[in-house]
Amino acid sequence: MSLLIVGSVAFDAIETPFGKTDKIIGGAASYIALAASNFTQNTKLVAVVGEDFPQEFIADLQSKGVSTEGLQIKKGEKSFFWSGKYHTDMNTRDTLVTELNVLADFDPIIPESYQDCEYLMLGNLTPKVQQTVIQRLKKRPKLIVMDTMNFWMEIALDDLKETLKMVDVLTINDEEARLLSGEYSLVKAAVKIQEMGPKYLIIKKGENGALLFSGKDVFFAPALPLEEVFDPTGAGDTFAGGFIGYLAKTGDISFENMKTAIIYGSAMASFCVEKFGTERLVNLKADEMQSRINVFRNLVKFNMASV
Amino acid sequence: MSLLIVGSVAFDAIETPFGKTDKIIGGAASYIALAASNFTQNTKLVAVVGEDFPQEFIADLQSKGVSTEGLQIKKGEKSFFWSGKYHTDMNTRDTLVTELNVLADFDPIIPESYQDCEYLMLGNLTPKVQQTVIQRLKKRPKLIVMDTMNFWMEIALDDLKETLKMVDVLTINDEEARLLSGEYSLVKAAVKIQEMGPKYLIIKKGENGALLFSGKDVFFAPALPLEEVFDPTGAGDTFAGGFIGYLAKTGDISFENMKTAIIYGSAMASFCVEKFGTERLVNLKADEMQSRINVFRNLVKFNMASV
Repeated sequence: MSLLIVGSVAFDAIETPFGKTDKIIGGAASYIALAASNFTQNTKLVAVVGEDFPQEFIADLQSKGVSTEGLQIKKGEKSFFWSGKYHTDMNTRDTLVTELNVLADFDPIIPESYQDCEYLMLGNLTPKVQQTVIQRLKKRPKLIVMDTMNFWMEIALDDLKETLKMVDVLTINDEEARLLSGEYSLVKAAVKIQEMGPKYLIIKKGENGALLFSGKDVFFAPALPLEEVFDPTGAGDTFAGGFIGYLAKTGDISFENMKTAIIYGSAMASFCVEKFGTERLVNLKADEMQSRINVFRNLVKFNMASV
Repeated sequence: MSLLIVGSVAFDAIETPFGKTDKIIGGAASYIALAASNFTQNTKLVAVVGEDFPQEFIADLQSKGVSTEGLQIKKGEKSFFWSGKYHTDMNTRDTLVTELNVLADFDPIIPESYQDCEYLMLGNLTPKVQQTVIQRLKKRPKLIVMDTMNFWMEIALDDLKETLKMVDVLTINDEEARLLSGEYSLVKAAVKIQEMGPKYLIIKKGENGALLFSGKDVFFAPALPLEEVFDPTGAGDTFAGGFIGYLAKTGDISFENMKTAIIYGSAMASFCVEKFGTERLVNLKADEMQSRINVFRNLVKFNMASV
């Protein structure tokens, strides 16, 4: 079933303990679309780039079945650019440069041909823009998944709370869940955040996996223990792309199926961090994914006899 | 099958964001023995306390099938005492007081009736004392599990390395694994630590679960997401006690069975943190444990269709 992805498509320059890059392709929607394209070829993108953005990557997306009719290319303007440097633990990073450029006044225009979308993934953007996307859809999608970040909790909390009322699934990390709820315990945080709107909450914990909460139901998916996390940029977006891609493919939005979707999301994220930027995702093969899914199964599978 | 536990039996005074205690029962071997007693009634304790130690707790252990023949009670001396204060995150703590007392010159005498033990759990103690225990056993146990801590890596690394050569399973936390191996990646750390001796390595990550490594095999068990971690003291020891207790009960030391044992250890630890000190473990009922095991099963269970 058709999936609409809205988010940034941009340039990143990344420094990790393993090396550094010049400007490479980044942006939440880039990672989400690449990850989701492993599950469904019926994906539509709404984003904005400048004239400086390489046609090759747009062609890459198209070759993976992503419609770029909704990708605005602004003549004479520059794409969003972010530069950051990771610390040794790879969980924290310093932002070196943020140039909003075309993202500063992004107006998310939804092409008429996108109006039938049943799944909507809102990548991290200003909550107002996320809200506008939902309002512009004539028919509410079957499932709306939204990502956000601490920055909006600090400077646009009221807008964020308005948008939260309109979505089904929120994905944030553990620190953001604590910030948004004012609760240290993630179990208590999950209760409070569900009261804000989303019926499902996914708390991402990086190398420590992810939790899915809905009412009294909880599911935990580990991250794959890796020899090397080369570059964590985009891992959360890749996770979200795998998650909603799998749901869109199967058309089943039950809690049970979301558990499986989270495992697929975790598997996708484990690939993302193996190389800089989107490189690993662009070149991912179907059999590589299937064998990694098996690794995940073995990682958590145990026999439970009764004592 | 019979299980020998060697470690501290002591007093703790604990302060957490939820309250503080006077002197209460603590010590690695106390937690290990209480946890293991849920699985096997054939448990033997070697430890040392002072004259100040309450007979009631010794009777509690005995009533749970723990032999205290090897518990030395030193006339006119005082028990080991530790006092600490936890930070809000409950993962870090400051030590306020450490009084070694009877533990300063602990000589781990093994009663003759303990010589048949097939399972040995070495709680955190000086590596020399742990080594002495192994040397004093006339027949090597079927499985030796050892816990240790960063302190010994800093002040007694050579002794620690000698002891590591003699054991089968090492349990340490993630920071200790990094310190011991000099590797940030836990996957790389696990390879290096296995080269030091133990064929199995369990890396405890507190609220982020535990990893079991052996050669190329990896297993991950989550910690139960809890509304409140009231007091984390002894959680790691309780985990180890549940782990080795289950192995001793089943008599199966395969990697597959260790996975199940880790789930039982994690379940035991989830009880431990619900109240101060050993209180929750002392009063734990069999049906409570079984229902928590079911919660663990549901926490990680997912259906894996092929994409």
